[in-house]
Amino acid sequence: MLKVIAEDFIKPEHIETVRPLYAELVRLTRGEPLCLAYELFEDHKQPGHFIFIEEWPDQAALDAHCASEHFRRLVPQIDACQTKPGTYILMKPVLADPNDQAASSASASTVTP
Amino acid sequence: MLKVIAEDFIKPEHIETVRPLYAELVRLTRGEPLCLAYELFEDHKQPGHFIFIEEWPDQAALDAHCASEHFRRLVPQIDACQTKPGTYILMKPVLADPNDQAASSASASTVTP
Repeated sequence: MLKVIAEDFIKPEHIETVRPLYAELVRLTRGEPLCLAYELFEDHKQPGHFIFIEEWPDQAALDAHCASEHFRRLVPQIDACQTKPGTYILMKPVLADPNDQAASSASASTVTP
Repeated sequence: MLKVIAEDFIKPEHIETVRPLYAELVRLTRGEPLCLAYELFEDHKQPGHFIFIEEWPDQAALDAHCASEHFRRLVPQIDACQTKPGTYILMKPVLADPNDQAASSASASTVTP
Protein backbone atom coordinates (compact mmCIF):
# COMPACT_ATOMS: atom_id res chain seq x y z
CA MET A 1 0.00 0.00 0.00
CA LEU A 2 1.23 3.48 -0.88
CA LYS A 3 -0.02 6.40 1.21
CA VAL A 4 0.48 9.96 -0.01
CA ILE A 5 0.19 13.38 1.65
CA ALA A 6 0.17 16.17 -0.95
CA GLU A 7 0.03 19.78 0.25
CA ASP A 8 -0.98 22.86 -1.74
CA PHE A 9 -0.51 26.48 -0.69
CA ILE A 10 -3.09 28.67 -2.45
CA LYS A 11 -3.14 32.48 -2.50
CA PRO A 12 -6.00 33.64 -0.23
CA GLU A 13 -7.58 35.62 -3.08
CA HIS A 14 -7.72 32.44 -5.20
CA ILE A 15 -9.24 30.05 -2.65
CA GLU A 16 -12.71 30.27 -4.18
CA THR A 17 -11.20 29.86 -7.66
CA VAL A 18 -9.65 26.50 -6.80
CA ARG A 19 -12.63 24.99 -4.96
CA PRO A 20 -14.49 23.87 -8.11
CA LEU A 21 -11.19 22.65 -9.61
CA TYR A 22 -10.52 20.57 -6.49
CA ALA A 23 -14.11 19.30 -6.54
CA GLU A 24 -13.72 18.06 -10.13
CA LEU A 25 -10.27 16.58 -9.41
CA VAL A 26 -11.58 14.70 -6.37
CA ARG A 27 -14.67 13.42 -8.18
CA LEU A 28 -12.79 12.16 -11.22
CA THR A 29 -9.88 10.72 -9.22
CA ARG A 30 -12.25 8.74 -6.99
CA GLY A 31 -13.58 7.26 -10.22
CA GLU A 32 -10.17 5.87 -11.17
CA PRO A 33 -10.28 2.07 -10.86
CA LEU A 34 -7.08 1.91 -8.77
CA CYS A 35 -7.84 4.78 -6.38
CA LEU A 36 -8.26 3.40 -2.83
CA ALA A 37 -8.77 6.77 -1.10
CA TYR A 38 -8.52 10.43 -2.09
CA GLU A 39 -9.53 12.87 0.62
CA LEU A 40 -9.09 16.64 0.67
CA PHE A 41 -8.71 18.73 3.83
CA GLU A 42 -8.17 22.36 4.77
CA ASP A 43 -5.80 23.53 7.50
CA HIS A 44 -7.78 25.00 10.43
CA LYS A 45 -5.25 27.78 10.97
CA GLN A 46 -3.75 28.63 7.56
CA PRO A 47 -6.26 29.68 4.87
CA GLY A 48 -5.25 28.35 1.45
CA HIS A 49 -3.34 25.37 2.87
CA PHE A 50 -5.06 22.33 1.32
CA ILE A 51 -3.99 18.77 2.07
CA PHE A 52 -4.74 15.60 0.13
CA ILE A 53 -4.47 12.23 1.89
CA GLU A 54 -4.34 9.54 -0.77
CA GLU A 55 -4.07 5.76 -0.89
CA TRP A 56 -2.97 3.71 -3.89
CA PRO A 57 -2.10 0.04 -4.26
CA ASP A 58 1.35 0.85 -5.66
CA GLN A 59 3.53 3.40 -7.48
CA ALA A 60 2.17 2.36 -10.89
CA ALA A 61 -1.34 3.35 -9.82
CA LEU A 62 -0.10 6.74 -8.62
CA ASP A 63 1.79 7.23 -11.88
CA ALA A 64 -1.38 6.43 -13.84
CA HIS A 65 -3.26 9.02 -11.75
CA CYS A 66 -0.63 11.68 -12.50
CA ALA A 67 -0.87 10.84 -16.23
CA SER A 68 -4.67 11.02 -16.32
CA GLU A 69 -6.50 13.58 -18.44
CA HIS A 70 -8.14 15.18 -15.41
CA PHE A 71 -4.87 15.47 -13.47
CA ARG A 72 -2.99 17.00 -16.41
CA ARG A 73 -5.84 19.41 -17.14
CA LEU A 74 -6.78 20.52 -13.59
CA VAL A 75 -3.51 20.51 -11.61
CA PRO A 76 -1.80 23.21 -13.74
CA GLN A 77 -4.86 25.45 -13.21
CA ILE A 78 -4.61 24.89 -9.43
CA ASP A 79 -0.84 25.38 -9.46
CA ALA A 80 -1.31 28.79 -11.13
CA CYS A 81 -3.02 29.91 -7.89
CA GLN A 82 -0.18 28.86 -5.55
CA THR A 83 1.92 31.02 -3.26
CA LYS A 84 4.71 28.42 -3.41
CA PRO A 85 5.21 24.95 -4.92
CA GLY A 86 3.25 22.09 -3.42
CA THR A 87 4.95 19.31 -1.47
CA TYR A 88 4.29 15.60 -1.19
CA ILE A 89 5.34 12.67 0.97
CA LEU A 90 5.20 9.03 -0.13
CA MET A 91 4.73 6.73 2.85
CA LYS A 92 4.42 3.11 3.93
CA PRO A 93 2.53 1.88 6.99
CA VAL A 94 4.57 1.12 10.10
CA LEU A 95 1.99 -0.57 12.31
CA ALA A 96 -1.00 -1.78 10.37
CA ASP A 97 -4.38 -1.41 12.06
CA PRO A 98 -5.73 -4.98 12.44
CA ASN A 99 -9.14 -3.61 11.42
CA ASP A 100 -7.73 -2.07 8.23
CA GLN A 101 -7.76 -4.69 5.48
CA ALA A 102 -5.84 -2.55 2.98
CA ALA A 103 -3.04 -1.84 5.43
CA SER A 104 -2.89 -5.42 6.69
CA SER A 105 -2.54 -6.83 3.20
CA ALA A 106 0.56 -4.66 2.69
CA SER A 107 2.18 -5.44 6.03
CA ALA A 108 5.24 -7.18 4.60
CA SER A 109 7.26 -4.06 5.43
CA THR A 110 5.67 -3.60 8.84
CA VAL A 111 8.00 -3.61 11.81
CA THR A 112 6.63 -4.52 15.20
CA PRO A 113 8.56 -4.78 18.44
CA MET B 1 -14.53 15.58 12.49
CA LEU B 2 -10.98 16.64 13.27
CA LYS B 3 -8.18 15.18 11.15
CA VAL B 4 -4.57 15.52 12.29
CA ILE B 5 -1.22 15.01 10.58
CA ALA B 6 1.62 14.89 13.13
CA GLU B 7 5.21 14.53 11.88
CA ASP B 8 8.27 13.39 13.83
CA PHE B 9 11.89 13.64 12.72
CA ILE B 10 13.97 10.99 14.48
CA LYS B 11 17.75 10.73 14.47
CA PRO B 12 18.73 7.76 12.24
CA GLU B 13 20.66 6.13 15.07
CA HIS B 14 17.52 6.19 17.26
CA ILE B 15 14.99 4.76 14.77
CA GLU B 16 15.06 1.31 16.36
CA THR B 17 14.80 2.91 19.82
CA VAL B 18 11.52 4.62 18.98
CA ARG B 19 9.81 1.68 17.22
CA PRO B 20 8.65 -0.05 20.43
CA LEU B 21 7.65 3.33 21.91
CA TYR B 22 5.54 4.06 18.80
CA ALA B 23 4.07 0.55 18.93
CA GLU B 24 2.94 1.07 22.52
CA LEU B 25 1.63 4.57 21.78
CA VAL B 26 -0.38 3.33 18.78
CA ARG B 27 -1.79 0.33 20.67
CA LEU B 28 -2.89 2.34 23.72
CA THR B 29 -4.21 5.29 21.68
CA ARG B 30 -6.35 2.99 19.52
CA GLY B 31 -7.84 1.78 22.80
CA GLU B 32 -9.03 5.30 23.72
CA PRO B 33 -12.83 5.38 23.47
CA LEU B 34 -12.86 8.57 21.33
CA CYS B 35 -10.07 7.60 18.90
CA LEU B 36 -11.55 7.21 15.40
CA ALA B 37 -8.24 6.48 13.61
CA TYR B 38 -4.55 6.54 14.54
CA GLU B 39 -2.22 5.36 11.79
CA LEU B 40 1.57 5.59 11.68
CA PHE B 41 3.62 5.79 8.48
CA GLU B 42 7.26 6.13 7.45
CA ASP B 43 8.51 8.38 4.68
CA HIS B 44 9.80 6.27 1.77
CA LYS B 45 12.70 8.63 1.13
CA GLN B 46 13.70 10.13 4.48
CA PRO B 47 14.65 7.62 7.22
CA GLY B 48 13.44 8.76 10.63
CA HIS B 49 10.56 10.82 9.21
CA PHE B 50 7.46 9.30 10.85
CA ILE B 51 3.94 10.55 10.14
CA PHE B 52 0.76 10.00 12.16
CA ILE B 53 -2.61 10.41 10.45
CA GLU B 54 -5.25 10.73 13.15
CA GLU B 55 -8.99 11.22 13.33
CA TRP B 56 -10.93 12.49 16.34
CA PRO B 57 -14.55 13.56 16.77
CA ASP B 58 -13.53 16.99 18.08
CA GLN B 59 -10.82 19.05 19.82
CA ALA B 60 -11.86 17.82 23.27
CA ALA B 61 -11.09 14.23 22.25
CA LEU B 62 -7.65 15.27 20.96
CA ASP B 63 -7.01 17.18 24.19
CA ALA B 64 -7.95 14.09 26.22
CA HIS B 65 -5.48 12.04 24.12
CA CYS B 66 -2.68 14.53 24.78
CA ALA B 67 -3.46 14.41 28.51
CA SER B 68 -3.49 10.59 28.68
CA GLU B 69 -0.99 8.68 30.79
CA HIS B 70 0.47 6.89 27.76
CA PHE B 71 0.89 10.12 25.76
CA ARG B 72 2.57 11.97 28.66
CA ARG B 73 4.84 9.00 29.37
CA LEU B 74 5.84 7.93 25.82
CA VAL B 75 5.96 11.17 23.79
CA PRO B 76 8.79 12.75 25.84
CA GLN B 77 10.86 9.58 25.32
CA ILE B 78 10.23 9.79 21.56
CA ASP B 79 10.93 13.53 21.51
CA ALA B 80 14.32 12.89 23.12
CA CYS B 81 15.29 11.08 19.88
CA GLN B 82 14.36 13.93 17.51
CA THR B 83 16.58 15.88 15.15
CA LYS B 84 14.14 18.81 15.32
CA PRO B 85 10.74 19.53 16.87
CA GLY B 86 7.75 17.69 15.44
CA THR B 87 5.03 19.50 13.52
CA TYR B 88 1.29 19.05 13.31
CA ILE B 89 -1.62 20.20 11.18
CA LEU B 90 -5.25 20.29 12.35
CA MET B 91 -7.63 19.89 9.42
CA LYS B 92 -11.27 19.77 8.40
CA PRO B 93 -12.65 17.88 5.41
CA VAL B 94 -13.39 19.88 2.26
CA LEU B 95 -15.21 17.33 0.11
CA ALA B 96 -16.51 14.40 2.11
CA ASP B 97 -16.29 10.98 0.46
CA PRO B 98 -19.89 9.75 0.15
CA ASN B 99 -18.63 6.31 1.20
CA ASP B 100 -16.98 7.72 4.35
CA GLN B 101 -19.57 7.81 7.13
CA ALA B 102 -17.32 9.68 9.58
CA ALA B 103 -16.52 12.42 7.08
CA SER B 104 -20.10 12.67 5.86
CA SER B 105 -21.47 13.13 9.36
CA ALA B 106 -19.16 16.13 9.85
CA SER B 107 -19.89 17.75 6.50
CA ALA B 108 -21.44 20.91 7.93
CA SER B 109 -18.25 22.77 7.07
CA THR B 110 -17.92 21.19 3.64
CA VAL B 111 -17.91 23.53 0.67
CA THR B 112 -18.98 22.21 -2.68
CA PRO B 113 -19.20 24.18 -5.87
